[in-house]
Amino acid sequence: MPDLHLLLISNSTNAGEEYLAWPRVYIQEFIQEYGIAEILFVPYAGVNLAPGSIEKSFDLYTEKVSGFFGGLGMSVNSIHLEADPVAAVKKAGAIVVGGGNTFHLVKMMHETGIMEAVREKVISGTPYIGWSAGANVACPSMKTTNDMPISEPRYFSCLGLVPFQINPHYLDANPAGHGGETREQRILEFLAVNHDMTVAGLREGTLLHLKGDTIQLKGSRPMRVFRFGEEPKEIMPGDDVGFLLSSGI
Amino acid sequence: MPDLHLLLISNSTNAGEEYLAWPRVYIQEFIQEYGIAEILFVPYAGVNLAPGSIEKSFDLYTEKVSGFFGGLGMSVNSIHLEADPVAAVKKAGAIVVGGGNTFHLVKMMHETGIMEAVREKVISGTPYIGWSAGANVACPSMKTTNDMPISEPRYFSCLGLVPFQINPHYLDANPAGHGGETREQRILEFLAVNHDMTVAGLREGTLLHLKGDTIQLKGSRPMRVFRFGEEPKEIMPGDDVGFLLSSGI
Repeated sequence: MPDLHLLLISNSTNAGEEYLAWPRVYIQEFIQEYGIAEILFVPYAGVNLAPGSIEKSFDLYTEKVSGFFGGLGMSVNSIHLEADPVAAVKKAGAIVVGGGNTFHLVKMMHETGIMEAVREKVISGTPYIGWSAGANVACPSMKTTNDMPISEPRYFSCLGLVPFQINPHYLDANPAGHGGETREQRILEFLAVNHDMTVAGLREGTLLHLKGDTIQLKGSRPMRVFRFGEEPKEIMPGDDVGFLLSSGI
Repeated sequence: MPDLHLLLISNSTNAGEEYLAWPRVYIQEFIQEYGIAEILFVPYAGVNLAPGSIEKSFDLYTEKVSGFFGGLGMSVNSIHLEADPVAAVKKAGAIVVGGGNTFHLVKMMHETGIMEAVREKVISGTPYIGWSAGANVACPSMKTTNDMPISEPRYFSCLGLVPFQINPHYLDANPAGHGGETREQRILEFLAVNHDMTVAGLREGTLLHLKGDTIQLKGSRPMRVFRFGEEPKEIMPGDDVGFLLSSGI
């Protein structure tokens, strides 16, 4: 069993709140537990913070995230400023992957070679924090993202740090009168072509904390779990979610 | 200029209405104009009409669509029952591509070889009707779909029958209190990495009718058009939308 330490967060920010306000207490606790002093940030999902320049967008994203982690006493390096991204991963104290567009994130992680490097590094015990797209890429693939395929990644395969799929920002309803698929319908379509996978619909304001061979749901709302051929289940924070780690892939 | 005849429909069905009820009058007119007696249906996007069997799902989808087109006096063949899909495309009187999951549709269209065959056939004058995913695949790529990437297509490239991107089921707002990206934010992310493309946000209850070198917006609501570095524009049915055909690709 690899020595995993993961904080997989549905969403950075609840509507109307400060940036990363709701998960702050969980992130702080996680950081303190492992004595983390500096983090390596992966901003590749943040393509549109500076409209017109992706490179500048990564700069702004890093600034924003540095502000937050700086407030917790951490120093932040961003992978987009490293000449050798794989080498940077290898010496990272902790890895933080931010949200945004999952397709662009996965494309860049494959192109730079850090998909494999981050996987090896985290499996060997380095703490990992990801929110939204950053939680999604901890899964076997990106096949349960909600994002638009604005970029074409070489593969959909991801870090595979957990054996199940997360659907971040899990949402119960469509806006009134809208005929498009609900999130639940989309996940059932996923299961129709991926029978052996479990999907954790992670509502906003919730996260999964994985520590070695234990996993906990934390936050203010239940999680909705989907398996092929079974009724979806509502799981409360505090309930046993260990079954997620034995799901087949 | 190729002799194109396309009906590109945002959504099959408005909430609470009968299947394909709202576009019925437009489809009927289109069919009559070209004297179409039989259609070749592409059901590949419909993965979950029969939970547990994709093949059966295609059967049910074909039944459903046959019911509709039968009511208009058409006979329907489905490509999933053809031993040689490319040959079936070559002899089709009209091609109809239904909605569902765009990723699975595009994967199947590339794998069966019909992506290229449909393109050639439609460019040579065969009428084409598509709704939702079927409207999206008429575009240069599938990069403006709303669907979940449940299947991994070999390429994101599509039919390229029009030089712009359609976002079907275009939606203005998120449900209250949801922090995920709005549709507009997603399209702006698309433009951040695809500067030269125009996106037509096609609201439910609207369609684009392309006939040779003319194109019209039809239906009950305006369309929202996005270009990199420009304010989004609202275009009313009846307005000149010819600029869409000169957009760069």
